[in-house]
Amino acid sequence: MLVVKKFGGSSVANPERIKRVAKRVVEEHQRGNQVVVTVSAMGDTTDDLIALMKQVTNNPSEREMDMLLSTGEQVSIALLSMAIRDLGSDVISLTGAQVGIYTDDVHTKAKILKIETSRVMAELNEGRVVVVAGFQGINPNNDITTLGRGGSDTTAVALAAALQADVCEIFTDVDGVYTADPRVVPGASKLSHISYDEMLELASLGAQVLHPRSVELAKQYGIPIHVRTSFNYSEGTIVEEAPNMENAPVVSGVAHDYNVAKIGLFDVPDKPGVAMKIFKALSAQNINVDMIIQSAMRNSMNDIGFTVTQDDLRKTLLTIEAIQEEVGFKGYTHDEDVAKVSIVGAGMISHPGVAADMFETLAEEGINLEMITTSEIKVSCVIKRSETEKAVRALHKKFRLDNLEEAKNYAGIT
Amino acid sequence: MLVVKKFGGSSVANPERIKRVAKRVVEEHQRGNQVVVTVSAMGDTTDDLIALMKQVTNNPSEREMDMLLSTGEQVSIALLSMAIRDLGSDVISLTGAQVGIYTDDVHTKAKILKIETSRVMAELNEGRVVVVAGFQGINPNNDITTLGRGGSDTTAVALAAALQADVCEIFTDVDGVYTADPRVVPGASKLSHISYDEMLELASLGAQVLHPRSVELAKQYGIPIHVRTSFNYSEGTIVEEAPNMENAPVVSGVAHDYNVAKIGLFDVPDKPGVAMKIFKALSAQNINVDMIIQSAMRNSMNDIGFTVTQDDLRKTLLTIEAIQEEVGFKGYTHDEDVAKVSIVGAGMISHPGVAADMFETLAEEGINLEMITTSEIKVSCVIKRSETEKAVRALHKKFRLDNLEEAKNYAGIT
Repeated sequence: MLVVKKFGGSSVANPERIKRVAKRVVEEHQRGNQVVVTVSAMGDTTDDLIALMKQVTNNPSEREMDMLLSTGEQVSIALLSMAIRDLGSDVISLTGAQVGIYTDDVHTKAKILKIETSRVMAELNEGRVVVVAGFQGINPNNDITTLGRGGSDTTAVALAAALQADVCEIFTDVDGVYTADPRVVPGASKLSHISYDEMLELASLGAQVLHPRSVELAKQYGIPIHVRTSFNYSEGTIVEEAPNMENAPVVSGVAHDYNVAKIGLFDVPDKPGVAMKIFKALSAQNINVDMIIQSAMRNSMNDIGFTVTQDDLRKTLLTIEAIQEEVGFKGYTHDEDVAKVSIVGAGMISHPGVAADMFETLAEEGINLEMITTSEIKVSCVIKRSETEKAVRALHKKFRLDNLEEAKNYAGIT
Repeated sequence: MLVVKKFGGSSVANPERIKRVAKRVVEEHQRGNQVVVTVSAMGDTTDDLIALMKQVTNNPSEREMDMLLSTGEQVSIALLSMAIRDLGSDVISLTGAQVGIYTDDVHTKAKILKIETSRVMAELNEGRVVVVAGFQGINPNNDITTLGRGGSDTTAVALAAALQADVCEIFTDVDGVYTADPRVVPGASKLSHISYDEMLELASLGAQVLHPRSVELAKQYGIPIHVRTSFNYSEGTIVEEAPNMENAPVVSGVAHDYNVAKIGLFDVPDKPGVAMKIFKALSAQNINVDMIIQSAMRNSMNDIGFTVTQDDLRKTLLTIEAIQEEVGFKGYTHDEDVAKVSIVGAGMISHPGVAADMFETLAEEGINLEMITTSEIKVSCVIKRSETEKAVRALHKKFRLDNLEEAKNYAGIT
């Protein structure tokens, strides 16, 4: 079996933890498996390098930032390889350039184009553990690039795809994907399996276990991802193509997200191209619009509501003011005192009553729904911020997620 | 003009110093010259990495040590490039691998085999300053190697040779090569020029300005080295092929070295192969023997004396004991209470009275000579340690080195 294992920065934050990771890797290797390990920079290394950089310049070239930051993973792979060798496995470390992780040339947020497998395969066939620097590659000009957010997860999945690995294990500080945030719902269950699409919806909703980018890549190449903790040996959650869908719970999880702000535009002229103008202006400012709702017209005027992250709110309001005259809407409101609650489940496709069950449950709790959007495997509602936990608990109970065997029996019974 | 500049770890020890180096580089670039800069790791970075490593393992693979330590220079080149760009010069940093500094595969002390110039020349021709990581290269297997002691000086000189640079400037914390250690001889003069051979003799004698390895390389390719300080703009010392030898001082400098231990072997059988056996055994232990003296025979027995560094003394004595029976010498002594004093000068070749002058001067001071060796451009004496400073001052005065114009007039007048 060929296994790719990825350990994040907190798993290799100090020499003790590096040795613990090494032990885990060597155990796998000594079971007779081929093992490729990819690691991030140790703990705060990246932040330390950025702090040092800021003492030199406030306006760094992105190419040189990549040159600087890529040293963090290089230190990790060298130290981890030393620790693995001490425990008796033959091992070699490789930088992104040495592997041949080719990317485009967008420094600080490069995309992987192709991974050369010959060096890694040759080392594996020599019986070595191969330790690869995460987060980095080289562009066609032979310059070092970094992959930006979620980069080390992406390295791991891309390596697994290129090497046709049997599984890609992502070690984090949580032990799997839960049906809800255990801090909100103490009885939340750990999911043993989840589909790529469900994981994507959960990840983008704030369950920050796996970066969506790596999930998309895993889905594209059909690589199973095993999300588990580096702190113990318990099984985590396997993310894969919808397995046994007939037997899966209809709803897999309840997610919530506080980083939401709601904007309403009043009396927007109802003519072609108006929505386009608004959202193009926001997109030009790199503002990511999430939910969008356009109400029924009255007097040839519409109301348009949408949500953005709270971080983007100020920029959003400035953009709206700038285009108000041109677009011709009468006014706008905004509200930060909101949150988004969602249910996610691949089974919803074949159980049409699920959305209605959600609305009923929230109504029974006296919670007002300010916005609603639905996709094939997700229903999201914007509600008052203070009612978030109550909503999550009620939904978790409604869909019987504290007991996954029971949850499978749920079938849209309202 | 194409200039290669090398800045050591203390010159780039913190952001302030990095900015100062950047200013100096940009001034050169803005004078219209092509500039290649090579730098070491910042200040204590290498020591810090080694300390971190020791928390992981006591027995690191040398390949992984190179992987680890080479990050130090990579951080330096990124930060220096950022600082240079801030001051208005276009610039690019390159690792040893990116330049194509090809070495053998002796990790931690690799030798440069070849330098690819195409990337560096292309960047220079784009008008960029090129900042190259010192101390590192890649072996034929595409693995990162480091060059060991004096590695960054060697990178600079090898780059200068490969690029056919006009000069290689080595910036250190001293402002040039002096006729004696100014702490011992306050009136010591700074030499404006010195030959490669003289520099080699001085460097190996403890005037630790330039590593002998880089001087040898510069001599081989005829690259002038300008040794100067990064703390001010004064001219330093130019090391080059013996310039105007007729007009150079006969003696260029007086060096001393405290890191010397003297060993004497008594009654060594006078038959072929005996000296070979002794020094082969020492060499097998990586002990560097410096001076060797074999006295005239009596009763078909010899006395053999030699010196090693004090660091190697213990290992030397163990080795001698181990071979005593086989070689058949009667006994041995050792003495650490000694030092070596030398005079170096290319002009000595044509002035045969210089050695005699040295002996006379030391005799006048009442200093006993325990061992003597001579080469074409050097005479070295082992003396009692406590008399070192007196010896150096007397010799410096004798050869008129406090005034280099006068020193040129000295011509072996005893």
